[in-house]
Order: sequence, then C-alpha cells, then structure tokens
Amino acid sequence: MTAQTTQKTNPGRFFEDYAVGDVLTHAVPRTVKMGERALYHMLYPARHALHSSDQFAQGCGLPFSPLDDLVAFHVVFGKTVPDVSLNAVANLGYAEGRWLAPVWPGDTLRSVSEVIGVKQNSNGKTGVVYVRTKGLNQHDETVMDYVRWVMVRKRDLDAPAPAPVVPDLAKVVDPATLAIPKGLSFAEYDFTLAGEPHRWGDYQIGEQIDHVDGVTVEEAEHMMATRLWQNTAKVHFDTGARPDGTRLIYGGHVISMARALSFNGLANAQMIVGLNAGAHANPCLAGDTIHAWSEVLDKAETDAPGVGAIRLRLVATKGHAPFVLRGEDGKYRSEVLLDLDYWALMPL
Amino acid sequence: MTAQTTQKTNPGRFFEDYAVGDVLTHAVPRTVKMGERALYHMLYPARHALHSSDQFAQGCGLPFSPLDDLVAFHVVFGKTVPDVSLNAVANLGYAEGRWLAPVWPGDTLRSVSEVIGVKQNSNGKTGVVYVRTKGLNQHDETVMDYVRWVMVRKRDLDAPAPAPVVPDLAKVVDPATLAIPKGLSFAEYDFTLAGEPHRWGDYQIGEQIDHVDGVTVEEAEHMMATRLWQNTAKVHFDTGARPDGTRLIYGGHVISMARALSFNGLANAQMIVGLNAGAHANPCLAGDTIHAWSEVLDKAETDAPGVGAIRLRLVATKGHAPFVLRGEDGKYRSEVLLDLDYWALMPL
Amino acid sequence: MTAQTTQKTNPGRFFEDYAVGDVLTHAVPRTVKMGERALYHMLYPARHALHSSDQFAQGCGLPFSPLDDLVAFHVVFGKTVPDVSLNAVANLGYAEGRWLAPVWPGDTLRSVSEVIGVKQNSNGKTGVVYVRTKGLNQHDETVMDYVRWVMVRKRDLDAPAPAPVVPDLAKVVDPATLAIPKGLSFAEYDFTLAGEPHRWGDYQIGEQIDHVDGVTVEEAEHMMATRLWQNTAKVHFDTGARPDGTRLIYGGHVISMARALSFNGLANAQMIVGLNAGAHANPCLAGDTIHAWSEVLDKAETDAPGVGAIRLRLVATKGHAPFVLRGEDGKYRSEVLLDLDYWALMPL
Repeated sequence: MTAQTTQKTNPGRFFEDYAVGDVLTHAVPRTVKMGERALYHMLYPARHALHSSDQFAQGCGLPFSPLDDLVAFHVVFGKTVPDVSLNAVANLGYAEGRWLAPVWPGDTLRSVSEVIGVKQNSNGKTGVVYVRTKGLNQHDETVMDYVRWVMVRKRDLDAPAPAPVVPDLAKVVDPATLAIPKGLSFAEYDFTLAGEPHRWGDYQIGEQIDHVDGVTVEEAEHMMATRLWQNTAKVHFDTGARPDGTRLIYGGHVISMARALSFNGLANAQMIVGLNAGAHANPCLAGDTIHAWSEVLDKAETDAPGVGAIRLRLVATKGHAPFVLRGEDGKYRSEVLLDLDYWALMPL
Repeated sequence: MTAQTTQKTNPGRFFEDYAVGDVLTHAVPRTVKMGERALYHMLYPARHALHSSDQFAQGCGLPFSPLDDLVAFHVVFGKTVPDVSLNAVANLGYAEGRWLAPVWPGDTLRSVSEVIGVKQNSNGKTGVVYVRTKGLNQHDETVMDYVRWVMVRKRDLDAPAPAPVVPDLAKVVDPATLAIPKGLSFAEYDFTLAGEPHRWGDYQIGEQIDHVDGVTVEEAEHMMATRLWQNTAKVHFDTGARPDGTRLIYGGHVISMARALSFNGLANAQMIVGLNAGAHANPCLAGDTIHAWSEVLDKAETDAPGVGAIRLRLVATKGHAPFVLRGEDGKYRSEVLLDLDYWALMPL
Repeated sequence: MTAQTTQKTNPGRFFEDYAVGDVLTHAVPRTVKMGERALYHMLYPARHALHSSDQFAQGCGLPFSPLDDLVAFHVVFGKTVPDVSLNAVANLGYAEGRWLAPVWPGDTLRSVSEVIGVKQNSNGKTGVVYVRTKGLNQHDETVMDYVRWVMVRKRDLDAPAPAPVVPDLAKVVDPATLAIPKGLSFAEYDFTLAGEPHRWGDYQIGEQIDHVDGVTVEEAEHMMATRLWQNTAKVHFDTGARPDGTRLIYGGHVISMARALSFNGLANAQMIVGLNAGAHANPCLAGDTIHAWSEVLDKAETDAPGVGAIRLRLVATKGHAPFVLRGEDGKYRSEVLLDLDYWALMPL
C-alpha cells in the first residue's frame, strides 16, 4: 500500500497525562428519552413503581416518572471512559456520590471531570488517578456527581512520578446533604401498588435480606446495555481484547442487575440518592447467574413528607451465596461480584 | 455472621392461600410508551400495518397506532405472576379473553384478579386455581380481561382441601360481545400497504395456512422480552431454577412470535379482540426454531364499517411441521408448542 | 387431515416476474420514533454527537437530533425485501444513493421501487434485477433514494430471457447534487463535545484510518436489529434456511457496526448524505469480531456554512486486518466483510 496512513484515533490518556486540577470536558452529550426508559426495563428486572408508572410518581409528588437513577449514573459514567479509563487496569472505587436532580425523558446529559488526585504505584508502571465527575443536564444543572479512582498504565515508564496527592474522601455521604427531589412526598404512598408493605420503620440496622431470585447473564445483553450508555471500553465487546478471549461485563451492568433484583425485599427503596462506596470485587462473565443480598447499614430522617433515608449494602454474587463477603484472608470471596454502599429513599 | 437476618421477600402464594372471591390487587403499575412499541418490533417480526404506522391506523379511523394487542396482554399478565403463578407447576389454560380498549402510548396499565375457582388435585399436593384478571388503564377503564387457570403447589400438604369450585367457562367468546375499538373502520382499507390482498370473504372455515417462515430463538431475546413485561418467574431467567439447567421460554414469547409469523398469509388479521382458549403444549427452549400455521375456525360479522371477525387457531411448532396437532394417543405431538384460539378483525 | 389447505403466503418474486418499468409499492409503512432512536444506540456503538444530542443538533442549525441516517436506509431497505430479495441469491451492489431529508422521530416511512434493469445470467438459472428505491415520509417527501441490484432465481428455467437492460449508473454521486439538510451549519461547531479536533481540512485524499476497536457480534443482536427494520429474509433468522445451519448476518448490520466504529478517527463525519457504491464482500456470522478502517477518497465543498463533504471508503473486516482489500487474484480477501463508498458532511 502506498497510501498515506495517519493516526487520528484516540489512544486514551496514560498516567503521566493527568495532573491535579486538570478539567476534562467529556464528549458526546446524550439526549435520553422514552426509549432509554423502556430499554432499562428490558435489560433489568426493574420494578420499583416510581420508575415504572407516571401515575405512581405523581402520587409521590413528581410531575411524572423519572428515568431510573442508575440510567443517570451509567450515562454520566459512560462519557468519562474515553478520557479516564481507556487504559485503566482497574476501577478501584467510588465515593461521595450524590444524585442531585432527577433525569427526565428529554434531558440531555454531559459529563465533566476534575482530576483531584494522582499517586504513582511503587512498581513504577501504573498509578492511581482520582477524578470528581459531574453529570450536567441541558440547563447546566448538576444531576449527579461522584468521585471515582482508577489504576492507569504509564505510557513511558521513565516519566517522573508526580508529587502524590490523595484526596481526603468521606467514608459515607452525610445524610443531611442528600438531595431530595423537589416535591417528593411519600405521605400518600400506595404500598399495595408498590408491591410490599415494609416501611422505613420496619427495617433495622444490621438486618440482612436475601433477594432470592437469580438471573443468568448473556453476552448480547451486557453488550447492548454497555453500548446504550456509550461506554466504549474494549474489554466489554471484543473477544480479542483479553488474553483468555472472554468479554468482561461492565461493572455497572452488575450494579443495575443487583439493584433490580433487590426489589424483592426492598420494593420501597424507591430512589437512589447517595453512593458511599463501591467495589467490583471479582469479574463477571456471561453465563454467570447473578444473585443479590442487602444489609441495612444505617437509617436517617429527611425533611420531605413521609420520606426516610436508608443506607444499604448491596452485594451481588455469582450463584446463590448470601451473607458472607470476605474469606479468612480478609479478601472478597471469589463468588462476590459487587459490594456497593448507597443511600435510598423509602416511605416512613 | 452475627447480624440479624429477616425475611421480607415474597415467597408467593400456595394453593391453600386462595379462596373463591379473593381479590388480588397486583403491584407495580407500568406506563408504556414509544419505547415499548419499538421494542415489540425488535423482539418479534411484527408487521401488521395498523400497529406499524400512525398513518395506516388513521386510515382505519384510529387517532394513531395503538400498541400491539399482545403488549397489553403481556403487561397485564406479567403483573399477575408474583401473586398467581410464582409457585405454579403449570399454566393450564385461558378462556373468555377480550380486548376492550386499545392501549395507547402513554397509558399506564395495572392488573386486578379475582379468584373464581379452586379445586385440589387428587394427589393432595397441588390444586388448580382459576382467576379472572382485568387490565386497567390510568382512567380505570378495563383494557382487557381474561380467565386463566394454573396448577399451584400446596405449602402444607395437611391443609384441608377447599370445597371445589370450577367456573363454567365459555368455550368460545360470543362474537357479538367482541369490543370493536371506537372509530375503527376498514371501509378505506389499503390492501397494498397492508401487504396482502386477501380479505375476510376470501377465507373459508376449515382453511389452513402454513406461515412458512421460522425464527430460531435465543436466550438473550426471550429473557429481554419477559423482563420487559415485568414477568418475574424464575424459570425464565435462572439456569439454577430447573433441574436440567435450561431456561423455559415464557409462553407469551411463543404467542407473540407465532402471531408475528402469521403475517405471512394473515397480514389483514389486524387486531386481536378475543382469546377463546390456549394451551402451551410443550416447553420451548433457546435454540428451537419456531414455525407457525393457522386454521380458520369461524367467521362473524360486526357492526363496524368494513370490519369482519375471524376466529383462528394459531399453532406454533418446533421446526416446520404443519397441520397435525395431536398423536394417536390424543396428546399434543412433541413438536407442538402452542395451540391458541382467538378472534381477530379483518377487512371485509 | 381433511381440512382444506390453501396458499395465501407470499412466495416472493422470481426473475421472470420483473420487467423494466414495473413499479413496486412496498407494504407495511413504519412510524419511527424515540424508541428506534434509543435502540440504534443499544445495537451499535454509535456516538456521532449530532445523532446523540438534541442540543448538539440545535447548535448545528437543526430543530433537534434526527434519527441516524442509517435508520432511514435500513427501514427503507427492509420494506423492499419481500418484493425484491426474498428469492435473491446475492445482493450485488448499490449506486446513486442520496439522503434527501432527515428522518425525525414521528415520521412514517414507506418505500417504492422501480425496476430499471434486468439481465438474465448465461447459466439460464438466475438473472440480475436493478431497482431504484425511494423512501418516502408521511408528507410524500422522498427522504432517500438509491439503486440496488440483486441476483434472483428463475422460477421456471424455461421462461424466455428478457431483452437485457443494464442501467447506466454513476460511479460516484456528484457532490454538487448532495442534499444538505435545511438549516445545517457547522459555523458554531463544538469540536470538544463532538469528541475529536480533526476538521475537513485536516483530512487528505488517500489518508487511511484504522478505527482500532472491535465488536464481537452475537446472534441475538443481529436478529433483533434486522427485525427492527422489518427485514424478513429467512437466512437471517432460521437455522434451517442455509445448508450449514448458520444464520447470515444482514449486511446492513455490518454497515451500521462499521460506521459506528469509525467514530474513532472520524467523529466529525457527522451525517451520511451519499452512497456511491457498496459490496458485501464476504458473509458475516455470529462470533465474528468486526473491525473497521477508512480511506479518504475525495473531498468537496458545499454551500452550507462551515460544511464540507468528504468521500470515504469504509471497510469492515473480520478481525483486525487493516488496509488491504484484495488478494493477488483481484478478489476481496476473505477477512473483508464490507467495502462501502459514501459521502459524509464534516465541519470545515
């Protein structure tokens, strides 16, 4: 071939390309509408009534049913992948996540991240990058923000290590700072239509719930879900991207599956408003059967009528294996896929 | 683990939990919009023009294209699963089904069932439960109703058998009671755009039609479809739910696939308005190739301009095997998946 | 069985059923809305900003984001299958394709084809049929038109060969005749949100771009995509339709996948406006990993503010194999799936 060949494609950023204070304006804003809403219900066994019925949402003081809170998370997250995690070795953690405004059909979401920490690893080959990401809608309102840190490869092993900056992150989002959607009220909440009678007062700290049901996941499903959020990480799509030919399932797919399964026992944990922490403990692959269990970590009151906050640990496992997170070595057991710590809103 | 564990999940009802006259208000109302409409066309080779084109529907006197009649059925049915068939051994039959009003994008559907019959089986382990289910929209109009009976396990084998009540069900919905959508007229029907020239008068009672085409079904597809209708029965999703590790395909998936395939020969059977009977004759599994044939069982006139009713038997088979339902033993042949008896509307 | 059996199904047209001048009014008009838009993003890794965000589209002078240009193509094409390619042996080529008006959510598309050429093959068993297909919206505006030719079987080998008519087709759509969507302007184009800085002036004729990423395709995905466009060709759905039991992936699925992958390097080639030529070089099957590369074939100016036209060759390959189309024998190499020649619009 004599034709000229050029390189116009995005190789992704490497560790030495990040400096504290950098602002990354992520590309490809996305308008989400009724189609994305229906697809969420097709991809996950989602049944929380507030996200299923306009009339139920109206009975809770909202104009109509917002998109699932995790749609906001996935779209905002997906936009950051080309700039944050294309060369990531691992997605290490989340903190200080808050949902600040519902996402309505017709909203357009975009994402902006600020680098808030960098720390080279002692092996000299990789480093940890901390970013605070904001998702904004077409009115420039922040619909959610969260901190995420990832391990990223260095391009040039000889590049000097930056001065380490590790942000001081809250272990838990202070419930007093949770944003309650404008107008939300559970004063007239219909427990029958919601599917379960259990209210905020019925849950005790330390209580554990086995969500019983399992879903065996397929390649086509997780790829369609991941594409829908415009997440482009190769490992999810290309059997040539990992040495063993498997396609790694996007961690957010496991989050959504586990959250949807948690309806059975937590049908009234209607809205997610805070993300305290999260670990993708082990890889999930097609053919795995995802089960889930939850633990009540804390409870808090809110100013909204009839609305309480509940802090939950949501654990996804491969197969039905409830209530044990770690082995004697202190590490996650091999069947644990996800350990997520979040705040939800529930009727008092 | 020292944490307190509780049971807040839904174990489903068992045979002894049903009594004639019980009213079950099913949970999780669902707003269906344009997304569900598009998904129906993605999941099934649906081509009936009235459900495909707003302009075609307007040419038939409707304000725009309603959601497929089977979307209404699947959503209404799906809501009943947690209360009716979570512990069901088998879905035994349908009767007296009528579509009473079209479902428009934006409608919210919910379901209510009344127990109209119970009869313990002679083995003492199971019983048959008959329910009449109504699907209602946000205006509290009934959009469809039907009777369904299922075989349900007993929780406690020592529970006393209830007095048997077996409802007297019509073998066929009287065509005089079929509900014709308000405004429907086939007086200006466009046979070219509909795809076939055959009108009501061209079909003869006893006539059989081989719909020719086949579709090989995949796990990802049937699970997505079943989830979309918020049907939560474990056997459809979890390879651990059945002894042989297979996932049983929701019977409604087979109904929709066969109905869509029947376009080829019945393109003008535009709307389903009555469900006379139905049997899921054999289980359908991923990898099966679904074919379909139909038989004209009856014909009737209606009051709407240019609109006739046609009673059809729709048979789905595994592989291409038309026109034989039962073996010499009187049982369904092993390749028969579905035997459905319904009324549709067709231009005169 | 004693019941009467009839043949009301569509056997498709054979070579001798086509005559130059025949007009085929294809059936089943289709209203496309927001659901189809979301599905496109789920099925393909599509990220061109103009089709992703209403606000981005408004920044380009459009009222909101139109459906992807290939949605128009697939829907218009799908309608023609029952009349043009049900008995086709091969889809041989495309020419003179132009997108004449954007398709907006809510539009209803239908297709009409005129036979513009017929030529029996020397084997006497098949012939080539040339059709010019128009896609029209509900206002009877032509949204796109293109020429396609297919090899079709004869029903009756003894039918006389028609006088051969081979239309004189342009090798390339004259860029002066490309239709620029009304109002389109790239004068205020936001390269950051679009995802790449490369403008029309940065691309050189002869330049080749490796789009890097690959997607391994699944049966469920290609069948859902193909059904969504109401394309009914058996070979895509039925493992019994081809001798080896494989399901052939619809060529348009490969086009959309490759076009979406080309975002990485051609993020600013926002809209497709012309189809010069196209060959489905080799069959694509589930399990194949699709990669893509492009070559800049030509460039042209337009009258719209800030808008240039770029002529691109888009090549899809099985596995990562850039920049070689043909072997020493002049035939497409076995890994080449698609060779498409099109015009796109790009900011100057």
